[in-house]
Amino acid sequence: MKVGAKPISGLDVLRAVSEGLVESSPAAALLGWKALTLEPGRVRVRYTARREFANPQGAVQGGFLAAMLDDAMGPALFTTLAAEDFAPTIEMKVNFLRPARPGPLVAEGRVVHQTRSLAFLEGTLTTEEGDLIATATATARVLSAEANGSGHPG
Amino acid sequence: MKVGAKPISGLDVLRAVSEGLVESSPAAALLGWKALTLEPGRVRVRYTARREFANPQGAVQGGFLAAMLDDAMGPALFTTLAAEDFAPTIEMKVNFLRPARPGPLVAEGRVVHQTRSLAFLEGTLTTEEGDLIATATATARVLSAEANGSGHPG
Repeated sequence: MKVGAKPISGLDVLRAVSEGLVESSPAAALLGWKALTLEPGRVRVRYTARREFANPQGAVQGGFLAAMLDDAMGPALFTTLAAEDFAPTIEMKVNFLRPARPGPLVAEGRVVHQTRSLAFLEGTLTTEEGDLIATATATARVLSAEANGSGHPG
Repeated sequence: MKVGAKPISGLDVLRAVSEGLVESSPAAALLGWKALTLEPGRVRVRYTARREFANPQGAVQGGFLAAMLDDAMGPALFTTLAAEDFAPTIEMKVNFLRPARPGPLVAEGRVVHQTRSLAFLEGTLTTEEGDLIATATATARVLSAEANGSGHPG
């Protein structure tokens, strides 16, 4: 995807999503994804944890916290890629430090280290007041559209 | 919680949820949780991954797969506890082996090892045809209501 001679970056796509010019993914929409900071290798996202995400104790079920962390770490990596590149998460580890109530939560995703084919990511999830809820690390496989001739090499 | 002299077990609660006599948690309802097998230390659950769980590639976002694994591993442990006990997941590791499309998925949760205060769990998520989508391990902290005088010691 090129406009004139300038290739579109993942960061451009994320900025367009953040400005409402491009639709966010269904998962991001469900989680209430809203970009707070978008810079190369680091993003901050505000979420709204819905009551539908609650476990029997009324806290947000851990998987939904993992989903929020994943949707911050993935974009942190995507800021460093071309718009057509694809980088599926191959493994993720989450530590649940405190229960979270439905409502606003803030996630930060960061690229820790990156090669042509792999990326090591980390993330934190906090309340709006900055209380740590969960931390995560993840590994993503980087599939370059240019190298593969397709944006979605499966 | 006692009926006559017989204390109610976590397994009793899960059976009641499975029979529609007790409401499932909001998270379980959102994921389409439906018990296939409920036995001490092992549960199998059928989910329906919604289109709202999809990432930009149309596959189910990894966090929602983690949520499905969490909601099978937690109940596997709960089958071994008293109804009032509480066992929050303190950490979880997920390996994403294959992308999953929206639709039916099957999770199995198992208790690998358990002490009075900790439980080590594992889970697998497959298609209805048995193709492996993701695997997980998790650690839960067991908080006995009897020892703590409350079902929800925070």
